[in-house]
Amino acid sequence: MTELLNNREHKKEELKKLILRIHNGEDVNTLKEEFRQVLSGISPLEIPIVEQELVKEGVSAKDIAKMCDLHVELFRESVAGTDELEERDLPDGHPLKTLYAENKEIMKDAEMLNLYARTLASTKDERMGKEILGVLEELISDLRGVGFTHYNREEMLIFPYIERRGLTAIATVLWTKHDEIRFMIKHFAELLKRKNELPWDEFTSRLVEKGGKLSFALSDMVFRENNIYYPTLKALLTDGEWKAIREQEEEMGFYKVNPPAWDPGEDVKPLHPWEIDPELSVEQLLGLPKEVQQALKGKPLEFDKSELKREGDVDMGTGYMNVEELRAVFEALPVDVTFIDRDDRVRFFSPGERIFDRTLSVLGRPVQLCHPPKSVHIVNRILRAFKEGRKSEATFWLHLGPKYVYIKYVPLFDKGGNYMGTLEMTMDIAEYRKIEGEKRLLDWRVEVKRETT
Amino acid sequence: MTELLNNREHKKEELKKLILRIHNGEDVNTLKEEFRQVLSGISPLEIPIVEQELVKEGVSAKDIAKMCDLHVELFRESVAGTDELEERDLPDGHPLKTLYAENKEIMKDAEMLNLYARTLASTKDERMGKEILGVLEELISDLRGVGFTHYNREEMLIFPYIERRGLTAIATVLWTKHDEIRFMIKHFAELLKRKNELPWDEFTSRLVEKGGKLSFALSDMVFRENNIYYPTLKALLTDGEWKAIREQEEEMGFYKVNPPAWDPGEDVKPLHPWEIDPELSVEQLLGLPKEVQQALKGKPLEFDKSELKREGDVDMGTGYMNVEELRAVFEALPVDVTFIDRDDRVRFFSPGERIFDRTLSVLGRPVQLCHPPKSVHIVNRILRAFKEGRKSEATFWLHLGPKYVYIKYVPLFDKGGNYMGTLEMTMDIAEYRKIEGEKRLLDWRVEVKRETT
Repeated sequence: MTELLNNREHKKEELKKLILRIHNGEDVNTLKEEFRQVLSGISPLEIPIVEQELVKEGVSAKDIAKMCDLHVELFRESVAGTDELEERDLPDGHPLKTLYAENKEIMKDAEMLNLYARTLASTKDERMGKEILGVLEELISDLRGVGFTHYNREEMLIFPYIERRGLTAIATVLWTKHDEIRFMIKHFAELLKRKNELPWDEFTSRLVEKGGKLSFALSDMVFRENNIYYPTLKALLTDGEWKAIREQEEEMGFYKVNPPAWDPGEDVKPLHPWEIDPELSVEQLLGLPKEVQQALKGKPLEFDKSELKREGDVDMGTGYMNVEELRAVFEALPVDVTFIDRDDRVRFFSPGERIFDRTLSVLGRPVQLCHPPKSVHIVNRILRAFKEGRKSEATFWLHLGPKYVYIKYVPLFDKGGNYMGTLEMTMDIAEYRKIEGEKRLLDWRVEVKRETT
Repeated sequence: MTELLNNREHKKEELKKLILRIHNGEDVNTLKEEFRQVLSGISPLEIPIVEQELVKEGVSAKDIAKMCDLHVELFRESVAGTDELEERDLPDGHPLKTLYAENKEIMKDAEMLNLYARTLASTKDERMGKEILGVLEELISDLRGVGFTHYNREEMLIFPYIERRGLTAIATVLWTKHDEIRFMIKHFAELLKRKNELPWDEFTSRLVEKGGKLSFALSDMVFRENNIYYPTLKALLTDGEWKAIREQEEEMGFYKVNPPAWDPGEDVKPLHPWEIDPELSVEQLLGLPKEVQQALKGKPLEFDKSELKREGDVDMGTGYMNVEELRAVFEALPVDVTFIDRDDRVRFFSPGERIFDRTLSVLGRPVQLCHPPKSVHIVNRILRAFKEGRKSEATFWLHLGPKYVYIKYVPLFDKGGNYMGTLEMTMDIAEYRKIEGEKRLLDWRVEVKRETT
């Protein structure tokens, strides 16, 4: 114990010297390696205590704040090295490897959160407290990203593959837990904002409690995923499936990792959930983690073999619809659409009740002949600007009785960048100007109740 | 002259007696025939003068107002009987017969307008003036309808047929004149509103001037249409074309007529402009009015033979688009769309940048599995209400950073009334809440100028 204290005392003196050099203008980055050496001898758990003592001895909080990044880095280094086993045989950029890597980041941040919340509760120094609060705010703001990236990718990109194979329960349980964590993160962030509102002791003890629970929930999820969910994925998903997943990942983003491109081979066709064979082979079944095998016993899996593409469906690139559905969609849109092709001829208008009438006779008619002669020169000027790429939209708005009509023209181009035509979109925006506040999905019950009473 | 005055004096006395009976409670309708007999001896041009004298003698303006309808009716009877020649051999409900019938109404109203404007200028009686103003306001309000119905049907339903045949000049000239009349009507209505603003003499002399010009322009258009345009249509358009026109007329409405249904026969296929053979036969050419034949001499007609339907086009019912165009339209829409089919499976989402991410993996997935487990019961409740026809929409709105997100769900039904699925529409309405005033097509020039200076 004495030795530990002596060591800390020694390190503290070293740190003070370094901080003085920062204070005198030396850049923190050039001192990075020296900081690393000094800090490496102290347990991450001790760093806040050392900091607190430094503050007491008059070192400026501003200077100490500059060390924060180094603490985090050091802490990460100290917990690195877990879960290596599962990842070892996966190539870089493989979605599963990325998931493992993100879980390491999540685990670290979860532990940091817990640690800093506890340190905050025990510190008596105001400046010190302020800085820890700053770290906590940053951490919780980072952790919100877990929901948008890591969890969201699992829920949207990966769950469909196991649902098809009948393992819907795993998806539902994980999503429920994800949402619990999302709420805990949200509530912790809200609590942090109340720092000037609550008595300090009450504030910090609540932070410790909520931080502990959140930290535990995050770690617990990492544990479940690493030990049950990811091995399940590994046993079931084929290269084609991972390839399709990889193609869509970037859109949703990652949690503190930046995976390289990965392609199992040009000959491997990306497989979307509706394209797979959902039946489990014996090999796949035996490859599942014991917990999952146990859960499946006695319950036959309900494979989802429904076909997405029906006879006569139009392949829209992002789905399949038949013509009757397509027409109904256009009729239901809150936007009236008219499309003129590259030759300025009216090619399509959306059916149903419209703000400005369109009749079948207008099909094939040059748009110049559909306008009052007086304004034709403007129509031509807009189209020229579109075709020459000088304009990408033209908007207009006007009152029409109780309607406030908003009109937007945009040019459409094919994949080769060639002009395909111009789309006219007309909508009544009067209603949208009256809306106030919020009405969310979960409020729907209330509305129904009101109507039936 | 003395006789005329005596006659008027006599009729005036008769009218006074009748009006007294109205005043004493007898219904104007039961007295209609007696009114007709008394009024029939007076020229329509004299009626306002008689009225004016009655007002001077103390007959209440209110009672005289009740006679207004009768004047109008009488005036119409007096001008009826023209253009009978052209109509005679057309069946009731035939679009061309309807056009002729509307022109009679337009002609009468045009003459009434001129007549009443002049009477107003000559009257010295205030009450009388007030009543004539009332009649003028009603007349001009009616006449605005000419633009929405009679002219609009010609421009949108009928012009395309003669344009295809190369007679674009006729269409352009008529439309230009229609628009001039629309503006004259608008300006006359605006002038009427300034009655308390301008000195009375200036006000009435302007009314006489504008009323005279408008009346002339309306009558002149009737003359042109009846003598040149309609005979041209009669020579060129076939039963199939008139049938297609008749099918679309009701949507736009009529001017003071109510034509019955008309069908040239079940075996006659409705022909839309893009389906006709635009080349003129010798018979058609010789059937054209002399003025048109004269105009066509020396200039070869440029028939429009462009095909509307291309290979691979999807027949949308209200036009033809290929899949690349369809996709581009959905991508350009200011509304993100997701469609789930009758089995609650995601079948399509619109591509491109979206408010809420959608990835291909979601296709074919039951919508219940696409939602956080916590809110699934609400999703199911909404879908049940849609399928059972208890609800026709569900709307939600919420703030999302700078976006104000508006979400609308509607059920889609096929023509047989069977549930086809549900459409989710998501849009950012923040922009629409900031818009002020108006920006019309003709303002576009200004914008471009500003940008280039």
